[in-house]
Amino acid sequence: MIHKSITAALIIIGNEILSGRTQDANTAYIGENLANHGVSLCEVRIIPDIESTIISTVNEMRANFTYVFTTGGIGPTHDDITAASIAKAFSVELQNNKEAHSILLNHYGTDNLNEARLRMARIPEGAILIDNPVSAAPGFNIGNVYVMAGVPKIMQAMFDNILSAIQGSDPILSRTISCALPESAVAKDLKRLQGQYPEIDIGSYPYFHRGNNGVSIVLRGVDSITLDRVATQTTQIIVKCGGHPKTH
Amino acid sequence: MIHKSITAALIIIGNEILSGRTQDANTAYIGENLANHGVSLCEVRIIPDIESTIISTVNEMRANFTYVFTTGGIGPTHDDITAASIAKAFSVELQNNKEAHSILLNHYGTDNLNEARLRMARIPEGAILIDNPVSAAPGFNIGNVYVMAGVPKIMQAMFDNILSAIQGSDPILSRTISCALPESAVAKDLKRLQGQYPEIDIGSYPYFHRGNNGVSIVLRGVDSITLDRVATQTTQIIVKCGGHPKTH
Repeated sequence: MIHKSITAALIIIGNEILSGRTQDANTAYIGENLANHGVSLCEVRIIPDIESTIISTVNEMRANFTYVFTTGGIGPTHDDITAASIAKAFSVELQNNKEAHSILLNHYGTDNLNEARLRMARIPEGAILIDNPVSAAPGFNIGNVYVMAGVPKIMQAMFDNILSAIQGSDPILSRTISCALPESAVAKDLKRLQGQYPEIDIGSYPYFHRGNNGVSIVLRGVDSITLDRVATQTTQIIVKCGGHPKTH
Repeated sequence: MIHKSITAALIIIGNEILSGRTQDANTAYIGENLANHGVSLCEVRIIPDIESTIISTVNEMRANFTYVFTTGGIGPTHDDITAASIAKAFSVELQNNKEAHSILLNHYGTDNLNEARLRMARIPEGAILIDNPVSAAPGFNIGNVYVMAGVPKIMQAMFDNILSAIQGSDPILSRTISCALPESAVAKDLKRLQGQYPEIDIGSYPYFHRGNNGVSIVLRGVDSITLDRVATQTTQIIVKCGGHPKTH
């Protein structure tokens, strides 16, 4: 594991992920983009729409990580309880936010801004809004917590908007080298290589695609020179073990 | 949320999920099959390949849930540290398991059972093996913790093998009703309906598919008669609000 000083956690709020109805797509997007920004996604928790669980999870994680992102539960229906729960986690009031109200009014017009949609203007006191270019209703940032929608298209637009405001560090770079050998063939040499380069995270991932079995070796780190050196050695290990390395 | 007395948690162990390289596919499979078996998946944690994190997460979750499932980190390479970490979490020895050794020997033959593959016979003392019909190397069960492979095809085969041994209860049933209305249109009536039927979990999930926008309302509960009653009322709400309900 690359030890980064800037860390992040993601809280995915939603019964629909836990029940298996909806496949989470937000972890991969956030993990990859944070890595490019020099922030390590260190933990993800998928939790149900239960107020006490949201409060305790947010409070635990915001104390332990530089940044906490949440997705889900900020829509207009009764099961959207994220904003109210976050307000309680921070011990602040949930208020009608004038700026959010104005954004919703502008988007929906007076006739269509019904009671349900007005729920989406209720934002914890002191929070800063996160722009939603897809469907108007904003996310928000309070302390080190960034609260976003669960629908991937909307979450991604919100995340892209806030990423520039997040302090990152050197991007976490990666190299992937694959071969058709079983991972056990290269295991001993890879272990030695990992011992030599503790600053590079060497992961070994077997794949099984319709009879095409093999292993992808993923190298991750912040220093491209060291990374290239380890990549070269990985390639040599594969050749020595009788494989044909492919670099991606 | 349906309050079930039989609860489960899932721990996904693997840097490759956190980095965004690999999309998790295990949560949806496990969540859906547990629900059918009458067990609520209450929380998922995705954590890195760090021994101390695995130990603390396993120990926290096995104390709080009826069952804990883990996926990932039981292969032959240096980054596969799940078995050793679980042994430490339970304060037992990591041993060469004779039965696992024999399974591996039978699968690979004497010539191909190298040192790396023999790592996969190291199982915490007192654990019961979980059969792996795909690639031989077994998972294991210790206490209320079930340790499985991370590769979905292998994980699914292991999970299917252990499900019958897990005490479940009434299956969690669901009904889905969709319409092309925005979710705010039905929000007020759905809230009232949820208040009337606290034993049914009513979820509202907007969808946006190439201009076909609408909402799917998902009803979940263990009593099919109540579920059908709530489904009928949901249908009536949609019609009242000017929509055309579709039941899935």
